[in-house]
Amino acid sequence: MPIKMMKSLLLMMLVFINIPSLSAKEHPNLILTQEGVEQIRKNLGKVPLFDASLAKVKAIVDAEIADGIDTPIPKDFSGGYTHYRHKQNFIIAQQAGVLYQILQDDKYAVYVRDMLFQYEAMYKNLPIHPMVRSYAPGKLFWQCLNDSNWLVYMSQAYDTVYNFLSAQERSTLENNLFRPFADYISLANPAFYNRIHNHSTWGNAAVGMIGLVMDDEELIQRALRGIVDDGLEVGGIDNDGGTIKVEGQKRGFLANLQEPFSPDGYYTEGPYYQRYAMYPFLIFALGMENAKPELGVMQHKDNVLLKGVNALLNLTDADGEFFPLNDGQKGMSYFTPSLVTAVNVAYHYGDQNPQLLSIAQTQNEVLLDQAGLAVAMGIRDNKALPFAKTSVNLTDGANGDEGGVAVLRYGNEELTNVFKYAAQGLSHGHYDKLSFSLYAKGAEVLQDYGLSRFVNIGQKGGGNYLKENTTWAKTTIAHNTLSLNQEMHFKGQYAVGSQHHSELYVYDDSRPEVQVVSATETNAYPGTKMHRTMVMIKDENFTKPFLLDIMKVATNAKQDYDLPYYFLGQVISTNFEYASQSTLVPLGKKNGYQHLYLEGQGQPSIDNTKLSWLNEGKFYTLTSATNTTDELLFTRMGANDPEFNIRREAALIIRRNDTQDTTFATVIEPHGSYSPVTEASLDSSSNIANLAVVHDDEQYTAIQITDLSGNVQLFILANLDAKASTTHRLKIADTTYDWTGAFYYH
Amino acid sequence: MPIKMMKSLLLMMLVFINIPSLSAKEHPNLILTQEGVEQIRKNLGKVPLFDASLAKVKAIVDAEIADGIDTPIPKDFSGGYTHYRHKQNFIIAQQAGVLYQILQDDKYAVYVRDMLFQYEAMYKNLPIHPMVRSYAPGKLFWQCLNDSNWLVYMSQAYDTVYNFLSAQERSTLENNLFRPFADYISLANPAFYNRIHNHSTWGNAAVGMIGLVMDDEELIQRALRGIVDDGLEVGGIDNDGGTIKVEGQKRGFLANLQEPFSPDGYYTEGPYYQRYAMYPFLIFALGMENAKPELGVMQHKDNVLLKGVNALLNLTDADGEFFPLNDGQKGMSYFTPSLVTAVNVAYHYGDQNPQLLSIAQTQNEVLLDQAGLAVAMGIRDNKALPFAKTSVNLTDGANGDEGGVAVLRYGNEELTNVFKYAAQGLSHGHYDKLSFSLYAKGAEVLQDYGLSRFVNIGQKGGGNYLKENTTWAKTTIAHNTLSLNQEMHFKGQYAVGSQHHSELYVYDDSRPEVQVVSATETNAYPGTKMHRTMVMIKDENFTKPFLLDIMKVATNAKQDYDLPYYFLGQVISTNFEYASQSTLVPLGKKNGYQHLYLEGQGQPSIDNTKLSWLNEGKFYTLTSATNTTDELLFTRMGANDPEFNIRREAALIIRRNDTQDTTFATVIEPHGSYSPVTEASLDSSSNIANLAVVHDDEQYTAIQITDLSGNVQLFILANLDAKASTTHRLKIADTTYDWTGAFYYH
Repeated sequence: MPIKMMKSLLLMMLVFINIPSLSAKEHPNLILTQEGVEQIRKNLGKVPLFDASLAKVKAIVDAEIADGIDTPIPKDFSGGYTHYRHKQNFIIAQQAGVLYQILQDDKYAVYVRDMLFQYEAMYKNLPIHPMVRSYAPGKLFWQCLNDSNWLVYMSQAYDTVYNFLSAQERSTLENNLFRPFADYISLANPAFYNRIHNHSTWGNAAVGMIGLVMDDEELIQRALRGIVDDGLEVGGIDNDGGTIKVEGQKRGFLANLQEPFSPDGYYTEGPYYQRYAMYPFLIFALGMENAKPELGVMQHKDNVLLKGVNALLNLTDADGEFFPLNDGQKGMSYFTPSLVTAVNVAYHYGDQNPQLLSIAQTQNEVLLDQAGLAVAMGIRDNKALPFAKTSVNLTDGANGDEGGVAVLRYGNEELTNVFKYAAQGLSHGHYDKLSFSLYAKGAEVLQDYGLSRFVNIGQKGGGNYLKENTTWAKTTIAHNTLSLNQEMHFKGQYAVGSQHHSELYVYDDSRPEVQVVSATETNAYPGTKMHRTMVMIKDENFTKPFLLDIMKVATNAKQDYDLPYYFLGQVISTNFEYASQSTLVPLGKKNGYQHLYLEGQGQPSIDNTKLSWLNEGKFYTLTSATNTTDELLFTRMGANDPEFNIRREAALIIRRNDTQDTTFATVIEPHGSYSPVTEASLDSSSNIANLAVVHDDEQYTAIQITDLSGNVQLFILANLDAKASTTHRLKIADTTYDWTGAFYYH
Repeated sequence: MPIKMMKSLLLMMLVFINIPSLSAKEHPNLILTQEGVEQIRKNLGKVPLFDASLAKVKAIVDAEIADGIDTPIPKDFSGGYTHYRHKQNFIIAQQAGVLYQILQDDKYAVYVRDMLFQYEAMYKNLPIHPMVRSYAPGKLFWQCLNDSNWLVYMSQAYDTVYNFLSAQERSTLENNLFRPFADYISLANPAFYNRIHNHSTWGNAAVGMIGLVMDDEELIQRALRGIVDDGLEVGGIDNDGGTIKVEGQKRGFLANLQEPFSPDGYYTEGPYYQRYAMYPFLIFALGMENAKPELGVMQHKDNVLLKGVNALLNLTDADGEFFPLNDGQKGMSYFTPSLVTAVNVAYHYGDQNPQLLSIAQTQNEVLLDQAGLAVAMGIRDNKALPFAKTSVNLTDGANGDEGGVAVLRYGNEELTNVFKYAAQGLSHGHYDKLSFSLYAKGAEVLQDYGLSRFVNIGQKGGGNYLKENTTWAKTTIAHNTLSLNQEMHFKGQYAVGSQHHSELYVYDDSRPEVQVVSATETNAYPGTKMHRTMVMIKDENFTKPFLLDIMKVATNAKQDYDLPYYFLGQVISTNFEYASQSTLVPLGKKNGYQHLYLEGQGQPSIDNTKLSWLNEGKFYTLTSATNTTDELLFTRMGANDPEFNIRREAALIIRRNDTQDTTFATVIEPHGSYSPVTEASLDSSSNIANLAVVHDDEQYTAIQITDLSGNVQLFILANLDAKASTTHRLKIADTTYDWTGAFYYH
């Protein structure tokens, strides 16, 4: 049933039956509702996954209650004890509140109450956190962001024990703790609160949620609309390098919902931050849906939040790990609690997509509320269908017109290509226009490095961003895309990068055997147009799908090009000679080059360059149509890295110096396997005999792939007209090719 | 029931019931027996794991039959097609023969017959293999070793279709193929056939097995006793550097069973080669047991073969992967088919140890013979018990008096320490006296590098040993043990190393919380005695077990010491300053040092050196009682490695120059965890406040460990008298310690 119908129906029902829980003073009414609690209690013992999740949470909370409450004086960065303890406290308090409602055992309410009063006692006189590093320091934590996390969870805890507390107790908590807390993260920190940024989303949600519990209309409006007069000047930079105030920018929860999400539900910072922001977005939207459904927050921007859940799930590899676009920490996956929330909410408040149930099955955990119950019942009733990840093209930008991210997939995620032609991605964006990464099932074939940070590991820069995030991870040469003259895209200038985005040229996933995404970038290097086309091909003469990568450059002067491929694994063979240095020196002095060692340097021996490698039991070969004047560089990360912050991983860089217009054509070909148990090495060689650019001018670029058996395939791209209806004719050698649409493949 | 009783019982039964299959001409009688076939056929459809294994093999063989038989003219090294194809042929032929017996479908016998006749047609005129690299080139393969593999399997195939063939067909095969084949790998290649070496074991078994099928007593004797007059001179080196003939050396299968196995079943080359040799040992012993039980081959040397299976299983990590002692390829595990054979045979022909059934369950596969049936029935009948890996001390040497390998384990393989104080290990031995490696469950904490080879990957040196196996993998500095003056143990001289072994000083696993192994080495560096003691401790004040490592050196001159720890993972923190080079140069010119880059160099800031790292979600800290004049080197493998044959992995080397007698004391402490999903960093710091050598003289060495809460533990080793009955008294500072036995811990 569509959301809007559901909502109408619900409102109608409410009119007729006048459920008392709707009255403003009934609690819980924020996330868990009175009706939800009744449903849950009726079904206890009857819904296996719900019962298991309840038992797990109960065991954790009981152990914490046995340990006693600790609310230490704040002193540590993330990674330190006080940070960990206060974070653990709000998580456990929220869970204890839920247990109180479901199990109706007062010990849980007592625990929440006592913890809240310990905070109340401490907060009244608490100074700003002693570790001053953030542009917006918190009080319990080193940044307002974490304080906001605390309030988002504690609002829920408060809601669940609201009726357990006396009016006097509530008044004390609200006056001494909750309202000052909400005011501190908003009124006292407008630079944190009034941005378009995931930080502000947490802040807005925190203020809004406590506003809903306290039934405080002023706080709710402050959450939805932001602080009207924040006194901030345009400009200003946070400690991650993000701009704080942009001219004419909106503010508040609704603006944060409006701006960073594209109509497809892609969040401009990338999936790692979307996963993080998803929780406050959904939880406050849900609070609004329960308390004030007439405002339609949950359905804002044509249900973009629910679309966002789907986008996020599609931005994972076969193991459920998010593609580490921009600042993303590898390993984060849909097993994270915020994705349990996302999947449960999207199922229950969306259209009960049975594919979401299989994700929930994999997560093996549900929320302890009416959404979690619905999911667990769906699984119990065998409604789950496999979550089929197919190719997807997600627009970026509030209006969906600022580039995007395309994910080409073949088979059951046998090969997955992630192509980024998006906008800058706010302060967490990398300078990697038209970059890509490649996955075979859950294994990275060509990696996106991700961020340079050890989140919450205190010994590593307090668990915060390391300087190598700027000097390495964000740089252009750190990515599988083209660098000109050893410069970064937009010269690494955030303000410039933020004004631009790449443009989609064509996206076509209609034929699984020949899927195409193509995009252009004209601003990263003024005067230069980069046009990259990625084709995922499953050819009957190849046992596995492969990727054709065409990077065509048109420019106004001669340039030095570097095109890296960050392969993971062990070099198996090359078809070119290279000199190997026994002394390693950095490849350059800046723009990320200072972090690369040059391990080998050679030149193509023929017009095709081949590199084969082995990773996690699979062979891969890169075949590139190179010139014999090109240089081939084996590099390894880790130069000028005294703290060992950078992983020691390799790349092959194709270097083409002193060249004006040019085209790089490369195939990445997975093949064969190796098992250390059977010691069988199967199909360990490339099946490509030759790769050639057989035609290349302004209008058309044609790539010919010849396999070892002599079979020939031709891919032609019409470079200037991608319309599906346009007919094209091109003569190559003695053959004339006629086709309709952007490309030809046969 | 003990083996001997079983055997007697069996013989008695045979006397009375006179089973016809015992007659020399009945087949099959080699591995599968007629009685076994009857049992199997009676139980088809009733034993799930057997049925599943049968179905799997049938599917594979049916697919191969559908593909047709290919016996290409030999031309490739391992890793190439002809190598792969001939190997696949003998595996499939053996399986097809078994299917013929079990399913009684002639198509399988026809397949085996046709394949054998294709070989017969080719072999008559086949020259020696064109790839001449082995000291003993084969004909179907580049080395006699692989030809022997072929004959071991094909003998079984022949036995199963023996009665399907006409006398004329058998005569043709025996005269043109099998006898010439057996003669070629033995009489024509005595250097291969007459050694004490896994190569010869395969050769002996091959000749013996075809001898058993052909009922040829001369071949059987040649298998058991070797070639009496081989015409070889003493000395001679194979292509792996192993000696071919040693003065007074015995030969043949029985000698190979006698010599390399210790009484505990440890095989001197190490588990990787034991796993490889186990198959011919067991399969020929089994053939002898079936055909000539009166010779007692299976029970030779007090059942050493069955003990060997147990030793081998104990030389695996928690994932079932063999410790890569000496030349071992990482990843090889008890999932390999030869271990399915080993486990099945040890269960059925041994004492039906129900713990073996749980390994078989994990393998999820059984042999298609009477042993496999027995295992599958045991599993079906819920007889399986967990295979409990505990600490074990395995002697090396034919008489168990040439050192050994000790594996200390705590908990359910929570921490596993592998300490090698063995003999040289024949030609596959490494120069790593008193080295160790450490595992936490299946994860390597401090690694043993293993071999430098990509077995069967043709592009990497034909799949054979790479030169880096000699220049790097075998060297002393490549291991977690002490190097003096940048020299290798025994100066890397195989002949010298082969004359010596380390000596056990004490082994005590009687208290799980304080397990000790200690050994000495006096020959690796003449004039120097190294005495290493490893203590696995689970202290109540530490959440996890840790390892105390004491290396005490007594020497006749000043030396330069290097003690490396090859940690895996990302550096998290150090407590010392170090200079980091932006240009990397090799650490030395030879003895493995040429393959190490120096990434950082510093000195201890206090009398304790600490390095913490993170690997696969776990934190580890090394704490060492260093001098402030020591040097601390961060190294990385991969220098002078133009073919990228060496993995780029790290070590911390503790360097102590210009010093005579000295003691290194180090704790390796696993602690805490990190999850990229929850982003929780728990217990990320060491719990050790101080580690000190509080007493150290010729008689006693005492190490004191103080934790962060101030708890103090003391370990004292009596260096010269390990007798359990000796009483000791030592005064340290103002306290007198009295104890009995080799060590004190409290």
